[in-house]
Amino acid sequence: MKVTIGLLGCGTVGAGVVELTRRRAGRIADMTGVRPVIKHILVRDEQKPRGVVLEGERLTTRPEDVLDDPEVRVVIETIGGIEPARTFILRALRAGKHVVTANKDLIALHGEEIFDAAEAAQAEVFFEAAVGGAIPLIRPLKGCLTSNEITDLKGIINGTTNYILSKMTETGAGFDEVLREAQELGYAESDPTSDVDGLDAARKLTILASIAFHTRVRLDEVRVHGIRSITAADVAYANDLGCVIKLLAVGRERDGALQLEVRPTLVPKAHPLASVSDAFNALFVRGDAAGDLMFFGRGAGSMPTASAVVGDLIEVMQHLRMGITETRGSNRLPKKQVHANQGPAGRYYIRLTALDRPGVFAKIAGVFGQAGVSMESVLQKRVKGEDAQIVIVTHAVSQGELAAAIQGLKDLGSVPSIDNVLPVEELEGEGPVLEDVMDDVVRTHPELS
Amino acid sequence: MKVTIGLLGCGTVGAGVVELTRRRAGRIADMTGVRPVIKHILVRDEQKPRGVVLEGERLTTRPEDVLDDPEVRVVIETIGGIEPARTFILRALRAGKHVVTANKDLIALHGEEIFDAAEAAQAEVFFEAAVGGAIPLIRPLKGCLTSNEITDLKGIINGTTNYILSKMTETGAGFDEVLREAQELGYAESDPTSDVDGLDAARKLTILASIAFHTRVRLDEVRVHGIRSITAADVAYANDLGCVIKLLAVGRERDGALQLEVRPTLVPKAHPLASVSDAFNALFVRGDAAGDLMFFGRGAGSMPTASAVVGDLIEVMQHLRMGITETRGSNRLPKKQVHANQGPAGRYYIRLTALDRPGVFAKIAGVFGQAGVSMESVLQKRVKGEDAQIVIVTHAVSQGELAAAIQGLKDLGSVPSIDNVLPVEELEGEGPVLEDVMDDVVRTHPELS
Ligand SMILES: NC(=O)c1ccc[n+]([C@@H]2O[C@H](COP(=O)([O-])OP(=O)(O)OC[C@H]3O[C@@H](n4cnc5c(N)ncnc54)[C@H](OP(=O)(O)O)[C@@H]3O)[C@@H](O)[C@H]2O)c1
Ligand SMILES: NC(=O)c1ccc[n+]([C@@H]2O[C@H](COP(=O)([O-])OP(=O)(O)OC[C@H]3O[C@@H](n4cnc5c(N)ncnc54)[C@H](OP(=O)(O)O)[C@@H]3O)[C@@H](O)[C@H]2O)c1
Repeated sequence: MKVTIGLLGCGTVGAGVVELTRRRAGRIADMTGVRPVIKHILVRDEQKPRGVVLEGERLTTRPEDVLDDPEVRVVIETIGGIEPARTFILRALRAGKHVVTANKDLIALHGEEIFDAAEAAQAEVFFEAAVGGAIPLIRPLKGCLTSNEITDLKGIINGTTNYILSKMTETGAGFDEVLREAQELGYAESDPTSDVDGLDAARKLTILASIAFHTRVRLDEVRVHGIRSITAADVAYANDLGCVIKLLAVGRERDGALQLEVRPTLVPKAHPLASVSDAFNALFVRGDAAGDLMFFGRGAGSMPTASAVVGDLIEVMQHLRMGITETRGSNRLPKKQVHANQGPAGRYYIRLTALDRPGVFAKIAGVFGQAGVSMESVLQKRVKGEDAQIVIVTHAVSQGELAAAIQGLKDLGSVPSIDNVLPVEELEGEGPVLEDVMDDVVRTHPELS
Repeated sequence: MKVTIGLLGCGTVGAGVVELTRRRAGRIADMTGVRPVIKHILVRDEQKPRGVVLEGERLTTRPEDVLDDPEVRVVIETIGGIEPARTFILRALRAGKHVVTANKDLIALHGEEIFDAAEAAQAEVFFEAAVGGAIPLIRPLKGCLTSNEITDLKGIINGTTNYILSKMTETGAGFDEVLREAQELGYAESDPTSDVDGLDAARKLTILASIAFHTRVRLDEVRVHGIRSITAADVAYANDLGCVIKLLAVGRERDGALQLEVRPTLVPKAHPLASVSDAFNALFVRGDAAGDLMFFGRGAGSMPTASAVVGDLIEVMQHLRMGITETRGSNRLPKKQVHANQGPAGRYYIRLTALDRPGVFAKIAGVFGQAGVSMESVLQKRVKGEDAQIVIVTHAVSQGELAAAIQGLKDLGSVPSIDNVLPVEELEGEGPVLEDVMDDVVRTHPELS
């Protein structure tokens, strides 16, 4: 017996899916009793060279060849973006075809519509590849870990920004230069907005948080900060403070309300997330029963992404053989409150430019004291004739206290710019560990004591 | 609707299962449409205080109360050991009851018999908790990752030995002292054989390797070395060499043949496995499509283990609701060859005692040269009047070359004892990184050059 598959798209991921499905066809037949056969592949341009040699698979530019072929039982979508992927997937589902997709944008923005359509048609949608590439995340969260009340998600889930930040750390180069290089090497898109502004990570967090917290999270509920504001100076200061800068996606549930954030963060070098470099992804999960878990692996790439897609395909085929469609009731999820401005208390890194005049430090210290924010360490470097660059790391403060301090600084007049404000991650189970190791720096400036 | 459950055992794991099933009953009902109800709990001693307050659940000492009750659809086994757990599980399966177990000993030794009985009865057996406690390992290997040809498994899968080695590293104390302490704290059993001799890790590796390599591995095919031979001196030398000692379980498939080994190993401090301390477990998996993956979390404990058991229970309940039993054909697995003595080439740490006489070093060096083994670094410490303690780290050698060198040393007459031989783990993607940082040590002894 065989199961006929229609593939939408044959780019980076699609070509990997063709190759891997072929490589594993025998195993899949052994495991499921049915042989997967990709019949059609939809593309825009039939003449374009493909990353894989096609054998029996027929290229087409007409969506109906795939979507209206009754022989096709499973549609694999690797086109990306919202349209026409959304329309194609909905059409496939309504025709009772099962769908496997790697499309995080679509699931994050139109997940509800797609899951509803699937449920109505008794069809299945799998999307393991949409988050974390090859790393099994979606299925463990939907499966093994449903025995847990999950309280925390924290991870590095965008490879492009992680690559850029890793390279900035290694080379000391600035953001623009490293981005250009990453684009030349194909590690960043020609339009890098979605990655560097944190949107891609936010979409993935939307998907993960919806599953982990058993609710439906909207993309606009995630506070998003990208990495464009990170300068070579921030990377160097972070290093002096024993940290690296990582773009973290964080989801928490406290007392029934969620906090969701994507934000560049100072991560102490001894923290396990600090060593996740380049194109790797990692996700920490904390559950009330399981405790702390971490999942780590390749977040993108042709074969790693195909690994997840074909893993889903095998599951669909097993279900087909057993004659079941699995709807786990994920569509009747309660909406949970999201607190935009109530992250937990934590330490912050603040880089600012101040007029280099007598008494200015005392004024800054006064503002912090007024706001109830105490300072853990202070670094000062002279930058121009007039101005001083100051980096302050606070002790743990609430977001309200932090906001008050920032406002106070702005009102001061002698602080022309607040250049960056970044959270500082704690090492689990330990207090603050920042050690100031700069030579050319004033630690605890006399005027502040 | 409800599903009636029979629980065998109410110790560390069983009590956690009672507690967690109760805590998640509402969620499970939402997800599966059925409510889990634990009706009977089999124990040896009804009077013993339990780690959980029983509500509706009835304690019994008569196995037939659980196994012969037709209302019981699922049996959860948390007794441990081979008998009577084996007989109970087989009886439950033959009566068409589904089984969830945390019993690695039983699955490792009698897996085939149990899976056969399940298949014959169209019942399911789940055992996520048997390896890696709370970490989802079994299901990702059986699910998402079946799209891969897995080539490598490498991990820390025994918490007791990891705790002991971590404490030896932290405190500098010897094995016996730390073991005694661990027993007092309840981290090690009064009979620690199964853990410290590496048998528990070997059983878990048997289970993981069977699934990952799609074959049936026998326990006696795993080469097992425990940690009793590790002395405070080894831990200190390892530290001097920039390493920690970890008990690694390693499985590899090369050209269709397997290598399976549990062995204390020097792991460079920068290696991700080096920072897995105390009761945590971690598993590296390498697949042909996914590349490198790592899974990390709590390997034992009441609630972490219950997390996996109840996760399996939820899966069983979903299958019950959908009217399916899933047999993935794991019983028709081809037997693969296992090479007992053909690990890949690698570096080794050799600690030996030599007579401290002129010319002995030259003789030792001669033996190594003869065997084709070149030395990366040599440490020497004087121990008694007569003898010198020598630690040699080799460059990468084959197991044959290593064996020849060891035999040569034994034949030498001037080497009264070879105290320990341990593999040294490489940092991925880099060459040797050992840096000798001892002061009181002869690095590259003049006689050897
Ligand atoms: N790349 C990764 O590492 C990665 C990782 C995880 C998830 N994903 C997700 O996987 C999906 C695919 O990514 P990708 O990197 O493989 O993209 P890609 O390389 O740009 O490939 C897209 C493919 O879709 C086809 N296509 C685009 N628009 C189409 C249309 N209107 N009609 C028919 N065919 C159309 C293209 O056809 P032509 O070839 O003829 O132009 C191309 O073959 C995206 O959702 C992405 O987010 C990618
Ligand atoms: N502990 C962990 O962290 C952990 C982690 C992973 C897997 N596991 C596995 O989980 C299983 C249970 O471990 P555990 O630590 O919970 O063991 P445990 O604390 O010793 O509990 C064993 C339970 O089984 C009952 N029992 C033993 N023999 C029995 C018999 N012949 N008839 C009826 N009841 C019997 C005992 O009854 P009484 O209470 O009346 O003596 C006790 O309640 C083992 O297979 C173990 O390998 C444990």
